[in-house]
Amino acid sequence: MSEIELPESDSDAEVENQLDEDDRLKPEFVRAVLEAVEAGDDEAARTLVEPLHPADIADLFELTRQEDRAGLARAVSDLLDGDVFAEMNDYVREDLIDALEPHQVADLASELDTDDAVAIIEDMDADDQREVLRAMEPDDRAAIEEALSYPEESAGRLMQRELIAVPEHWTVGDAIDYLRGHEELTTDFWEVFVVDPAHKPVGTVALSWILRTPRGIAIGDVMQREQTLIPVDMDQEEVALRFQKYALISAAVTDATGRLVGMITVDDIVHIISEEAGEDILRLSGAGDGDINQPIGLTVKTRMIWLIVNLGTAMVASSIVGLFQATIAAFALLAVLMPIVSGMGGNAGTQTLAVVIRALATNQLTSSNTRWMILRELRIAAANGAMLGALIGIGTYLVFGRTDLSIVIAVAMIINNVSAGLGGVLVPITLDKFNVDPAVSSAVFVTTLTDTMGFFSFLGLATLWGLHG
Amino acid sequence: MSEIELPESDSDAEVENQLDEDDRLKPEFVRAVLEAVEAGDDEAARTLVEPLHPADIADLFELTRQEDRAGLARAVSDLLDGDVFAEMNDYVREDLIDALEPHQVADLASELDTDDAVAIIEDMDADDQREVLRAMEPDDRAAIEEALSYPEESAGRLMQRELIAVPEHWTVGDAIDYLRGHEELTTDFWEVFVVDPAHKPVGTVALSWILRTPRGIAIGDVMQREQTLIPVDMDQEEVALRFQKYALISAAVTDATGRLVGMITVDDIVHIISEEAGEDILRLSGAGDGDINQPIGLTVKTRMIWLIVNLGTAMVASSIVGLFQATIAAFALLAVLMPIVSGMGGNAGTQTLAVVIRALATNQLTSSNTRWMILRELRIAAANGAMLGALIGIGTYLVFGRTDLSIVIAVAMIINNVSAGLGGVLVPITLDKFNVDPAVSSAVFVTTLTDTMGFFSFLGLATLWGLHG
Repeated sequence: MSEIELPESDSDAEVENQLDEDDRLKPEFVRAVLEAVEAGDDEAARTLVEPLHPADIADLFELTRQEDRAGLARAVSDLLDGDVFAEMNDYVREDLIDALEPHQVADLASELDTDDAVAIIEDMDADDQREVLRAMEPDDRAAIEEALSYPEESAGRLMQRELIAVPEHWTVGDAIDYLRGHEELTTDFWEVFVVDPAHKPVGTVALSWILRTPRGIAIGDVMQREQTLIPVDMDQEEVALRFQKYALISAAVTDATGRLVGMITVDDIVHIISEEAGEDILRLSGAGDGDINQPIGLTVKTRMIWLIVNLGTAMVASSIVGLFQATIAAFALLAVLMPIVSGMGGNAGTQTLAVVIRALATNQLTSSNTRWMILRELRIAAANGAMLGALIGIGTYLVFGRTDLSIVIAVAMIINNVSAGLGGVLVPITLDKFNVDPAVSSAVFVTTLTDTMGFFSFLGLATLWGLHG
Repeated sequence: MSEIELPESDSDAEVENQLDEDDRLKPEFVRAVLEAVEAGDDEAARTLVEPLHPADIADLFELTRQEDRAGLARAVSDLLDGDVFAEMNDYVREDLIDALEPHQVADLASELDTDDAVAIIEDMDADDQREVLRAMEPDDRAAIEEALSYPEESAGRLMQRELIAVPEHWTVGDAIDYLRGHEELTTDFWEVFVVDPAHKPVGTVALSWILRTPRGIAIGDVMQREQTLIPVDMDQEEVALRFQKYALISAAVTDATGRLVGMITVDDIVHIISEEAGEDILRLSGAGDGDINQPIGLTVKTRMIWLIVNLGTAMVASSIVGLFQATIAAFALLAVLMPIVSGMGGNAGTQTLAVVIRALATNQLTSSNTRWMILRELRIAAANGAMLGALIGIGTYLVFGRTDLSIVIAVAMIINNVSAGLGGVLVPITLDKFNVDPAVSSAVFVTTLTDTMGFFSFLGLATLWGLHG
């Protein structure tokens, strides 16, 4: 009766205590780790961090302030393997990698498939990169140097060279024996590529097919001949769209001569899909890549550039108001109402802009339906402009009891909403035609348009009509 | 010499001619198909469409105007299989499905895995749904009815019931023989789940491990015990984040008692990741789901609601200007400059908002780093506010030569930029704490703040100082 056996520490239950229901590290867990590090109790910190998944260890570093990261890294250094670095935000990784010796970086990179190793090495400056490469095994080094020879954000950087390729005449049994007999082969694959003697891909077999097929059947008879190939210089955004469109799990990467040079798997694509889809909101607002781990000086600079451009356009709009100073001096109520006209145009323009930018990014808006899209947005703008014009006209009449003012503001509202809709669809489509990223540049043009058009139509009509207080 | 052999029609080359370099259907191809349909030459249309991938056939329907879709569907009806419908945009699919008889829909759904069948059936109205279910085989029907019993956008709707589960004591050889011996099993799987006698998942084995392991080894010895389980009622957005974070290819779905009830594969998740990441820009602008295939009346209504809310906030801001009518009447130049102050605050606020909304959506901003984030944004706002204030102050002095006016606009600009930064970070974080989607509601609050604060600080300071023309 006196001996009560305590339940053994259960690693699953521990993980439960570290993450909230959204798989985010709990603040009390993060705090406990950092307090242990600060108290010099590295062993306690290590015990806390050890059961975490590499992605969560990476998160832990991202949630830690820059000045505390080195201490944390020292405390849990033996848990900091290549997988953790591969999962880490670029800025945080750079920060940690900078503190390591070249041979330590080389060791980390050697554990990884080419794509993850490249991710770690590609952002280092040229000298450090050279030193790291020099410290690596010749094979690994050659693979990474080849990857680095492809443009940034291209398929060549994303792909791993570790893949399984077999000749067409092999049987399913040959393939299985080959896989069982070669320990050094990658285990990170979901399809086997079938190649001709020139190492050009001729088909692909999902592993489930290999498993379900009797050993004697030829690979050529079970493979799927139609496959989606990725050219090695394709931009990662296009790669992501292709994976998404055709629901690919992995795909062969080929060089200019059509030879199989690598493989991209969907797990390397998933974060690109999310990044590419999410970055438009950041670009539209001029927030750069919006990375919260970016050094603050760089963030200030990125946003500042955008704000200065917008200051220029705000001055253009303001100079329109300047044309009508006499009208405003005679009737100050116009200055009270004019921001409503310009602001509502801005809102309507942003709606159209957001829809068009998404439709372009997802390949839903193509030259096949451009005309239809423009007409669609024009109809929406006309409908909403008429409705808003009526509302504001009636409202103005009820508050100020002046028919002339009500008609002027209603008409200005309609004019500005229709220009907003037209600008919101024409500007991004035109930029896209000239291969300028519409998410980056559209807002400047559309906001300038809705501001100037709003002020000009409202104050212009008021002046024409000779409105005064 | 007289007989020249023409090259055989090469289906690959044809596909090349149908798609541009971004995998979008070429406009001339779309036109050729629609012209054939219009000319009544269904056979020609069919020949053109036949080599396309189901995802491209789905695209073809999305690029076709609503009034022409029925004709196209009739012409290529035998190519319209379940896979095509599964790839189709919701609105376009509904449009086509509405025109089909219940037993036709039932046939389509029967070809598909549960998740895709559910996608086709879930949007039908209750009566049609009942009829379709009645026309299905009892097994398929039960699977779909069970899926429909889970909440919309939950894991239960996304999962397929077709999966491979084996007991722990089986050997690799047993598993392979089982797969070879049962033709009716799904081929769409990448991992085998290992379950205990109560059908609870205890581990998972990637197919590459099964292939590489000798037949005699027990599954229990090669399986990975740590696995990420998805509760059947989890929201699809959380599922997507979990797949992304842990780079999953497939995951077991469990019910409340922990039993294995289904499987979600990454190809079903990829479009959700893209959708969830891309929808924030649409929500922030009040453009609803921004689907260009949405019926136009619904689009007008969705955007209108948002515009009316913004009309309300614009009137609040305008009423602030109204407080200072006398100041403006005495000095109309203030009305010229005031939109610059409010507009620049709006721009800065939107930048912060976009960054914070993305950081919340990607789980990068958690309660562990909220305080740090608020301080970070405040510092950025102060830096940019000071810079913009100096710029506009100097500019105003150079143009209008008035020290008083320059100081007033510079100070107002600083005040408004700092409030914008503070609002841009506090509003979404607060909304998120109360489980309100920050992307939907933040902009109203932040824009109202930057407008009113811009007008109030600038006109208020000008009034206090007694500025006049």
